[in-house]
Amino acid sequence: MTKPRNAFYAQSGGVTAVINASACGVIETARLYQDKIGRIYAGRNGILGALTEDLIDVGQETAGDIAALRHTPGGAFGSCRYKLKGLEQSRAEYERLIEVFKAHDIGYFFYNGGGDSADTCLKVSQLSASMAYPIQAIHVPKTIDNDLPITDCCPGFASAAKYIAASTREASLDVASMSKASTQIFVLEVMGRHAGWIAAAGGLASDEHCELPIVILFPEITFDQGKFLARVDAMVKQYGFCSVVVSEGVKNAEGQFLADQGVKDAFGHAKLGGAAPVVAGMIGDALGYRYHWAVADYLQRAARHLASATDVEQAYALGRAAVELAVAGHNAVMPTIVRRSEQPYRWEVGVAALERVANVEKKMPPEFITTDGYGITAECRAYLLPLIAGEDYPPYSNGLPQYVRLKNVAVPKRLKQEFNIG
Amino acid sequence: MTKPRNAFYAQSGGVTAVINASACGVIETARLYQDKIGRIYAGRNGILGALTEDLIDVGQETAGDIAALRHTPGGAFGSCRYKLKGLEQSRAEYERLIEVFKAHDIGYFFYNGGGDSADTCLKVSQLSASMAYPIQAIHVPKTIDNDLPITDCCPGFASAAKYIAASTREASLDVASMSKASTQIFVLEVMGRHAGWIAAAGGLASDEHCELPIVILFPEITFDQGKFLARVDAMVKQYGFCSVVVSEGVKNAEGQFLADQGVKDAFGHAKLGGAAPVVAGMIGDALGYRYHWAVADYLQRAARHLASATDVEQAYALGRAAVELAVAGHNAVMPTIVRRSEQPYRWEVGVAALERVANVEKKMPPEFITTDGYGITAECRAYLLPLIAGEDYPPYSNGLPQYVRLKNVAVPKRLKQEFNIG
Repeated sequence: MTKPRNAFYAQSGGVTAVINASACGVIETARLYQDKIGRIYAGRNGILGALTEDLIDVGQETAGDIAALRHTPGGAFGSCRYKLKGLEQSRAEYERLIEVFKAHDIGYFFYNGGGDSADTCLKVSQLSASMAYPIQAIHVPKTIDNDLPITDCCPGFASAAKYIAASTREASLDVASMSKASTQIFVLEVMGRHAGWIAAAGGLASDEHCELPIVILFPEITFDQGKFLARVDAMVKQYGFCSVVVSEGVKNAEGQFLADQGVKDAFGHAKLGGAAPVVAGMIGDALGYRYHWAVADYLQRAARHLASATDVEQAYALGRAAVELAVAGHNAVMPTIVRRSEQPYRWEVGVAALERVANVEKKMPPEFITTDGYGITAECRAYLLPLIAGEDYPPYSNGLPQYVRLKNVAVPKRLKQEFNIG
Repeated sequence: MTKPRNAFYAQSGGVTAVINASACGVIETARLYQDKIGRIYAGRNGILGALTEDLIDVGQETAGDIAALRHTPGGAFGSCRYKLKGLEQSRAEYERLIEVFKAHDIGYFFYNGGGDSADTCLKVSQLSASMAYPIQAIHVPKTIDNDLPITDCCPGFASAAKYIAASTREASLDVASMSKASTQIFVLEVMGRHAGWIAAAGGLASDEHCELPIVILFPEITFDQGKFLARVDAMVKQYGFCSVVVSEGVKNAEGQFLADQGVKDAFGHAKLGGAAPVVAGMIGDALGYRYHWAVADYLQRAARHLASATDVEQAYALGRAAVELAVAGHNAVMPTIVRRSEQPYRWEVGVAALERVANVEKKMPPEFITTDGYGITAECRAYLLPLIAGEDYPPYSNGLPQYVRLKNVAVPKRLKQEFNIG
């Protein structure tokens, strides 16, 4: 029997309401395989923790605190935005990683992130061959943007979608009440710079039990001001009010972001505003309707209080599967969600080669967007609804959700050399 | 025994997550007093419905739908922003009200709103004396701004406060994870143009279990840019990140709203941005930290999915009390929340004369704000915590909260004359 080797886990990119549920899945499962996995370390602030030998000793956290990660938003060990370049360009970084891994006998690398992180994970997986350091690298998918290929969905997306769908419904009921003598238009800006998955979720706010006029602006559709204003005007004339869900990534025919349309502050600085105030102002100027606007920003990806139970379960399952793949000897793979049936919704965990995942971006398929470009189709609805199903409330105390803060005790450094991040 | 007379109920001003819970309390209770109260009518879009004789026949709604109002945000009958002037200036409007009331034998007037509405309600209550039309007018308090006098708190406020406290906690955990290599600052803009009650709730996000650096900008405190930036900088140097909760009503020493500081769009229009992007940009320019910002707008007052159970209970109780006051013969009063004890929290319903309520605005007491002007005191915390206690989740179906839409059938008009709103 071979000696157990240690595991390294890190969080990467924008965090979500459920990335810690994946961490929980990884850690709780790794603790079950003591014959193969020794100590569990986490990178403080993602891969930066590995490069700077700033490792967190997960063994110092109680089982209760690790279990509480399942209902805690944000990234419990810290995240980062840092993409390793190719082996030739970033040789010093890869050599440093191997130094750190060797010093702490790390044989398993679990990286929890989106497309860029899958690329980093793939490169680490190749260290076995390219630099003769035996390591297994497994990617755990995560992104509210839902833009990874192969997997049916990405943990983090469904909870953001549930939040945006519920919030759009709630705010639409509000503006409906105000429409006669105060405000006719409500504009909500959502995340998703390249893909309109989150914006699409706004369309779920309206259904046969709760019909609401909602106009969606997808980043996949070039913004046409005249057509858009006509659509909003028609909605207000029919319903008395209208809600607009606008993706931060919407661009006009010149390829310019809506949010950048010449907005300047007193000092002449550009880019102050978001897309929502631009769209709202446009409606006010052209149609004379009174408006309110909101920008959800971090609220939408941190809203663990309204997480999708399906999302939490899948995030945990993929963390668990990553460890099971590792102990079964896999390398350079990512566990995925496979949709087995839609009604009733059934899913299982699959596996994808990282080569097929890294640097591929999944946009909304054209058949998910209505032909006018402003709504979601029945097919899109059928895809989204099972993902937002179920509530998984965190515990509350004193009226507030109780989230865990880990001790995050540093592992003593073994290397003499500091490493400067490039 | 006198013949039962009909009741009129209307919603006024900005709606809340629980104004319909008060409607539910009024309607369910009125239905119990059939010996005194005949039909129940609602004004479509508040007092406008009375002026235009656009009454809704509440009798056509099922008991189940009325019960569902308790968990439905927005204003189920429509609201309005419309303040009646004094009897001399607006004689035509008062005469019209009496015409409509007479035509439909309305003897009870229940008005659900904030400070302006209390004033309108007071004027209607005086019609008995001033224009010899017998009517009892009872005001049901409602405002997320929590700025009505006498009552310990206003229904609607506590749910907005709970939402802002929870959202600030969640987004702060998010920015904490991102702070090392991406974003150090999160700015959240909240409502409350004159009073900082909602902004204060952001301070609850940090407590002994979850310590977070939060800087609050209250409308009660004149904005001092240098002092504010120094404070934020100190927080980032200590914690690595900082959250700012800014009230939309914050002004600088010249009395200018932060949100209005020279922000212009491509056409030169002012007032496009909110306070959040201005504050965030200021931090970025002066301190070089990277930032995200959110504007909660309607989301904070419509978020029934995260309502305070205490708030829902009080909203319902005040609706019920309004009817009980009416059938007991009262006029020109408002039921209030009286705080009997803080630990354990005990409250009961009291009553206030409308003369003492109308046009009085309750700001944050100075002893609720820390001496540096950027935080809440223990006294403020003790006031706020019982209000946000308890969760009262709406029912869900298909992953979304299920809110009722009433039939809102119009009562046939009896008057020949239309009335033009001035």
